[in-house]
Amino acid sequence: MNIRPLGDRVVIKRLEAEEMTKSGIVLPGASKEKPQEAEVVAVGPGGFVDGKEVKMELKVGDKVLFSKYSGSEIKFEGTEYIILRQDDILAVIE
Amino acid sequence: MNIRPLGDRVVIKRLEAEEMTKSGIVLPGASKEKPQEAEVVAVGPGGFVDGKEVKMELKVGDKVLFSKYSGSEIKFEGTEYIILRQDDILAVIE
Amino acid sequence: MNIRPLGDRVVIKRLEAEEMTKSGIVLPGASKEKPQEAEVVAVGPGGFVDGKEVKMELKVGDKVLFSKYSGSEIKFEGTEYIILRQDDILAVIE
Amino acid sequence: MNIRPLGDRVVIKRLEAEEMTKSGIVLPGASKEKPQEAEVVAVGPGGFVDGKEVKMELKVGDKVLFSKYSGSEIKFEGTEYIILRQDDILAVIE
Amino acid sequence: MNIRPLGDRVVIKRLEAEEMTKSGIVLPGASKEKPQEAEVVAVGPGGFVDGKEVKMELKVGDKVLFSKYSGSEIKFEGTEYIILRQDDILAVIE
Amino acid sequence: MNIRPLGDRVVIKRLEAEEMTKSGIVLPGASKEKPQEAEVVAVGPGGFVDGKEVKMELKVGDKVLFSKYSGSEIKFEGTEYIILRQDDILAVIE
Amino acid sequence: MNIRPLGDRVVIKRLEAEEMTKSGIVLPGASKEKPQEAEVVAVGPGGFVDGKEVKMELKVGDKVLFSKYSGSEIKFEGTEYIILRQDDILAVIE
Repeated sequence: MNIRPLGDRVVIKRLEAEEMTKSGIVLPGASKEKPQEAEVVAVGPGGFVDGKEVKMELKVGDKVLFSKYSGSEIKFEGTEYIILRQDDILAVIE
Repeated sequence: MNIRPLGDRVVIKRLEAEEMTKSGIVLPGASKEKPQEAEVVAVGPGGFVDGKEVKMELKVGDKVLFSKYSGSEIKFEGTEYIILRQDDILAVIE
Repeated sequence: MNIRPLGDRVVIKRLEAEEMTKSGIVLPGASKEKPQEAEVVAVGPGGFVDGKEVKMELKVGDKVLFSKYSGSEIKFEGTEYIILRQDDILAVIE
Repeated sequence: MNIRPLGDRVVIKRLEAEEMTKSGIVLPGASKEKPQEAEVVAVGPGGFVDGKEVKMELKVGDKVLFSKYSGSEIKFEGTEYIILRQDDILAVIE
Repeated sequence: MNIRPLGDRVVIKRLEAEEMTKSGIVLPGASKEKPQEAEVVAVGPGGFVDGKEVKMELKVGDKVLFSKYSGSEIKFEGTEYIILRQDDILAVIE
Repeated sequence: MNIRPLGDRVVIKRLEAEEMTKSGIVLPGASKEKPQEAEVVAVGPGGFVDGKEVKMELKVGDKVLFSKYSGSEIKFEGTEYIILRQDDILAVIE
Repeated sequence: MNIRPLGDRVVIKRLEAEEMTKSGIVLPGASKEKPQEAEVVAVGPGGFVDGKEVKMELKVGDKVLFSKYSGSEIKFEGTEYIILRQDDILAVIE
């Protein structure tokens, strides 16, 4: 069973604190909006979404930074995921 | 008698708790916005809606996750349904 | 004398409670937004409305569900009507 | 001397209560937004207004229903008029 | 020295009370938004303003009604002017 | 070293009070929004800004009126400047 | 490991106070919105972002002024960065 996001949405899995430390990303305490690190597990088809052309730049496996206050959380077969729009992804960590 | 949604709207039927358990989706308590699981029972024609092209990606029978606070509830021949825009559907469960 | 709605507007006549019962639609008490059942009595020409192309999907005689808080109420030759935009019509009952 | 409205605006003259009675329109007290009956006395040229194409559907002499809270009131040579956008006209009474 | 407005802006000079009386326009006290009478003294070039095509319909010398709460006031060589967008001009008095 | 504004932004230098007096512009105390007089010192390239075509109408040396509450102030090599969008410039003084 | 921003986003590194002094930019205390000086360290691909064409005008190494209240702060391998949209960059210092 899979989660297939619609339109310009992606499904991501938040990386745990120990994974965060290994990746070298530390979020400072005083920032206005703290981005979160996550891994992309599913990518929507993009195309015309709400009348605007959206091309998907992300692929499954990408490590990404996303805006903390965006998206919807779900728990699926024991793991928590977040469904959000590609535009809420700030950057890819390579 | 049928409900035929207009434009980019779909009619969905919320899945009951026991169905939720079988599908493996569990919604965690602390999430900001809890998506809901439902089955699509009718799909609008799409086309030009409010001057923007909307292509319908959903079909009758799809299991979907939708945003809890969207749409209008109705009771029809003893069953509750929700009418909402396709854009309020987050993902399809396959 | 007739009411001819402009642009993408339609004129509808709310169905009475007894008619509601016959149609099988019951509106549950706890819903966030209760749609209302009505019959379409006049349909605007559509076309370019506010610079966007709107095609009218409704016709006179359609039974429709509409969003309760939309439109303007008028009383015309003893009967109450509501004038609202087609986009405020959720679905057609067939 | 004349009032020539710009763009998609029209100038209308509110119909008096006795005229309202003759026309058969009665506005119920409990409505959320009470439309008003008026006669069109001047129509703007339409065309491209704010970058969007607006075609004027109204003509001088039309009896119209308009949204009460829209437009600007002026008094001109002893008569009160309202200047408002065509989109604030709900319907034509024929 | 001149004031040359940019884009879709116009410069207008408010007409004094005595001029208002001569023109026959009286603004009633209870109106929601009182338009003001003024004379156009400078007109911007129009063209593409904020990505939308705006054609200037006004010319220097036009007597206009404008929305009271729009625009910026300046005093220039002893005379007060208002700089506002053409869309804030309601109508031309001819 | 220079400040090169991006997109449709311009850099302006506010004119001092004595310069204001010489230019004949006096700002009345009771106005809702007082425009300010300034000189343009740098002009962005314009072009497609946020998907909309913006053509720059201003050039270095223009005396302009701008809206007081717009833009960002900086101090550069001892002089204060304001960076703002061309659309916040009301008019050119010639 | 690198941070690759998506769409029209850029990654910048704030310049320290001593660097600010050397560059000659001083931010006055009473300004409404204080722009900040920073160096660009990564630039997104631009292209169609949210259905609008965005061309990237910035390149790695540019010294820029940016709006203080925009973007997301991250700490990466011991250095703080800010991820923000190109449109939040006010100007380039050359």
